[in-house]
Amino acid sequence: MHVLVNAAMSADGKLSTRRREQVRISGDDDFARVDRLRAAADAVMVGVGTVLADDPSLVRFDRKHRQRVGKSGVPARVVADSRARTPPDAEILRGDAPTYVLASEAAPADRRRALVGAGAGLVVAGEGRVDLAAALGALSDDGVADLLVEGGGELIFSLVEAGLVDELSVFVGPLLIGGRDAPTLADGEGFVDDFPRLELDDVELLDGGAVLRWSLAE
Amino acid sequence: MHVLVNAAMSADGKLSTRRREQVRISGDDDFARVDRLRAAADAVMVGVGTVLADDPSLVRFDRKHRQRVGKSGVPARVVADSRARTPPDAEILRGDAPTYVLASEAAPADRRRALVGAGAGLVVAGEGRVDLAAALGALSDDGVADLLVEGGGELIFSLVEAGLVDELSVFVGPLLIGGRDAPTLADGEGFVDDFPRLELDDVELLDGGAVLRWSLAE
Repeated sequence: MHVLVNAAMSADGKLSTRRREQVRISGDDDFARVDRLRAAADAVMVGVGTVLADDPSLVRFDRKHRQRVGKSGVPARVVADSRARTPPDAEILRGDAPTYVLASEAAPADRRRALVGAGAGLVVAGEGRVDLAAALGALSDDGVADLLVEGGGELIFSLVEAGLVDELSVFVGPLLIGGRDAPTLADGEGFVDDFPRLELDDVELLDGGAVLRWSLAE
Repeated sequence: MHVLVNAAMSADGKLSTRRREQVRISGDDDFARVDRLRAAADAVMVGVGTVLADDPSLVRFDRKHRQRVGKSGVPARVVADSRARTPPDAEILRGDAPTYVLASEAAPADRRRALVGAGAGLVVAGEGRVDLAAALGALSDDGVADLLVEGGGELIFSLVEAGLVDELSVFVGPLLIGGRDAPTLADGEGFVDDFPRLELDDVELLDGGAVLRWSLAE
């Protein structure tokens, strides 16, 4: 499986405000770029924090680009959600695209049942927290070869920590958000040594900011 | 006065780890770039958090470049330090370059005396926290026309919030640090609306990362 993380952050590395309110960081050209990334993906993934804060549907993508890259159908949706906190009426469970919820053994049985009842494909892996490597393995067995991860910062950190990320594209936008408690591109506990190294593959100017495309060094 | 903020952050916007330990984010080419920025400055400023965490001397600069830009003497040093917590034996108070400590009325008299005794030029402005606009006005009266600010994130946020920053140059380095508690380029309370807007003036590839040069929009 190839895992690409894409996100938009302010010039100071924030994904949103300390209140977790969405901020328009990029613009139409970057939105079109993201629609092409989704079109080339078999599935689009977010963390449950993003579902609870923004209630995204993740159904928009560039249909012409999907034809060009030779993918059929629509991208599936994936929520990393250790304790199955995704509300059964969340937008991410509506519409025609299939949705996987990746939970752990710690997810209460009633919540698991409610999500399956709402049409989710439930993958259970790991004890307290979802075992992302095992869960992505299950997605891979289901035919997901290209996974696009759209955040938030807790999920991105967990995936990097587990060594599961191949590429990272970041739109750095022309504004400052600030805030020691605002969500950043990579949250979690953080590294204190053996920092994951990146290679800068490309810089593209867009919407008054810059897209930095990085590869995770092996 | 012209205020330029310069900092190096990881690809996810961190200045150091959650333990406040310094991380080598950039490399020799970026260090040389910073030495030229210091050479062109009348004073180099940090927050007291940086003094307490890193004990920088801030005496290094590019002497040839200082001649080229027509500045005489050496850049002064400035600590934003509301409560005068700078240790009297801090590196930033040693050596020949003058050092200003910008404190508030809340700074205890004994600490103020100790700093003056250690050779600091004490500027007192503001009640609980240092009034940065007034304090920078005092520096300006003393001949500081070009001020280089090197962090940390609390000081950078305070200066942006006070509308005192003209330019921001950020080296975005080829590594991830992560951590919801790690210091970022702009910490403080953070903005929740009326986000300061930036204009991207230039992108330079360097040391495996990119220097983004922004102007603060008026």
